[in-house]
Amino acid sequence: MTPRNQQILLVARPNGPVEASQFSLVETPMPVPGPGQVLVQNTWLSLDPYMKGRMSAAKSYARYVELGEVMVGATAGVVLASQHPDFAVGDEVVGMLGWQTHGVADGATLRKVDTARVPLPAYLGVLGTTGLTAWIGLNDLCMPQAGETVVVDAAAGAVGSVVGQLAKLKGCRAVGIAGGADKCAWLRDELGFDAVIDYKAGRLAEDLKAALPAGIDALFENVGGATFDLLLTHMNAFSRIALCGLISDYERSAPTPLSNIRSLLINRIRLQGFIASEFPERAPIARAELIEHVAAGRLKYRETIAHGLENAPQAFMGLLRGENIGKQLVQLR
Amino acid sequence: MTPRNQQILLVARPNGPVEASQFSLVETPMPVPGPGQVLVQNTWLSLDPYMKGRMSAAKSYARYVELGEVMVGATAGVVLASQHPDFAVGDEVVGMLGWQTHGVADGATLRKVDTARVPLPAYLGVLGTTGLTAWIGLNDLCMPQAGETVVVDAAAGAVGSVVGQLAKLKGCRAVGIAGGADKCAWLRDELGFDAVIDYKAGRLAEDLKAALPAGIDALFENVGGATFDLLLTHMNAFSRIALCGLISDYERSAPTPLSNIRSLLINRIRLQGFIASEFPERAPIARAELIEHVAAGRLKYRETIAHGLENAPQAFMGLLRGENIGKQLVQLR
Repeated sequence: MTPRNQQILLVARPNGPVEASQFSLVETPMPVPGPGQVLVQNTWLSLDPYMKGRMSAAKSYARYVELGEVMVGATAGVVLASQHPDFAVGDEVVGMLGWQTHGVADGATLRKVDTARVPLPAYLGVLGTTGLTAWIGLNDLCMPQAGETVVVDAAAGAVGSVVGQLAKLKGCRAVGIAGGADKCAWLRDELGFDAVIDYKAGRLAEDLKAALPAGIDALFENVGGATFDLLLTHMNAFSRIALCGLISDYERSAPTPLSNIRSLLINRIRLQGFIASEFPERAPIARAELIEHVAAGRLKYRETIAHGLENAPQAFMGLLRGENIGKQLVQLR
Repeated sequence: MTPRNQQILLVARPNGPVEASQFSLVETPMPVPGPGQVLVQNTWLSLDPYMKGRMSAAKSYARYVELGEVMVGATAGVVLASQHPDFAVGDEVVGMLGWQTHGVADGATLRKVDTARVPLPAYLGVLGTTGLTAWIGLNDLCMPQAGETVVVDAAAGAVGSVVGQLAKLKGCRAVGIAGGADKCAWLRDELGFDAVIDYKAGRLAEDLKAALPAGIDALFENVGGATFDLLLTHMNAFSRIALCGLISDYERSAPTPLSNIRSLLINRIRLQGFIASEFPERAPIARAELIEHVAAGRLKYRETIAHGLENAPQAFMGLLRGENIGKQLVQLR
């Protein structure tokens, strides 16, 4: 039987939360690489909050997915056929092949990875875009000094968990906000966060006050909404905010308004929205540092793994509800 | 009759709008300068929106005025007596002597000014903190390139009117938002703004759309509230926001929430709250450039002048309601 390619297409745009009916699983003929191209069997698919934005036709920082197109996404896999001189059959590569079991890409868009020291899926998480996002946002935008207080929300996510550990490695006090006792225990007991707040415990304002006696010098903001609004009231003079995501709003039809904008003025805060891919000159430096930290056991990570492409939509909906701990992946075989 | 000093004290804190009853006019003995000090007769008092913040005991970037203290403020005047080697009787000086007809200050806190080329009160406005605020916010934080669109609100105020003219001098498209036909005519016809929007005309959203076909590259934000929220929807990718003030909220007991925070993320905006006095190394450069522009007639300014210290509270309330055009001053004799 000729092998076929399985794909998940976007077939409807969300108007509010993501639903399974907005995706369609199809089988298509195996693609054939042309000159300069490589055929990859994707063994891992990365799921990330930004994908919600790509499902919408609203203006954002990247082209949205057209209806009927394969959902966008980072992938890791093995080369099955190559017409590019830099890639050979059996090479392990990461790319942006989307929600499908196989894909063809220009060799220039793929990157060979070395799985001798760290396993392949780590290149989608702690050594992938999520790790780079944490590194760049912390180092280049939060710019914390030793002894300063760094706060990150969605702290048990793939980005947030790296932010907190990198802050600790820089000698900062790392404070994380996450939802649920399991996540908080992991951050505190295994990753070494100095303080962890469970926002689901229903006393965020009081817990923040207790955890932030010296205020916030740098905020790595992933969540937005009421959490961000409350954090703004704890910012110190000349503090920095790396605005990475607003995940609490992604599943709402209207954003949560923020009331504490005055803090940006009176504390002379510098806030910067960013996307890691727009700092390409920093990626090699970040990757080199991250791989050393991971290989030495200084930087820990966790993965929440769904199995089978057909389960990607459910896993993605769980990610948007915060059900994952660490990096959300789909293992494709 | 021995001359006496007239002072306006803060006697109650506003809980909402500023009211005349929160001030008290008193007469006190003429102060006597000690070693290193200078006695100044204040002839001009600057009124500025930041003073509302100093009336409140809420946390802000500066020490608030205690009840029973003289209201804070920048002043220009003439030296009556000096125990400081750098100052002689008759020198014209600017300082921060507050809402009073006379004051004693350390010589180190005063600056002698040259009124040969520009009149004394200009050193409180276009060549004072408001001019510096405009220059620093525009040059160091908005960093506009020729051809870019720069938007400023409260554009007919002392800061905004300088921002727009400096933007024009840099080859930018300057768009101003102000309240009322008089202000708008001045900005368009005399200061050369490329487009001016009267927010009181009641069609701000439509007018912004028409005035901003290429979006906003740099926003000098003085107003906050609903205006700022709407402006956020017009920001371009990689645009900059200099957050200078939130005057629309200063007379409210609760701030106007902002809904369009997502723009900061998707457009990778850099926003910076700032106070001009925290860029002391830039002040000499800014002043030197501003005085050349003023002396050459390239930088125009207007003053709204109240007469007599006793009228300062009413003039200040008018400023907070946007009744001034250009710099709001009180002439003290």
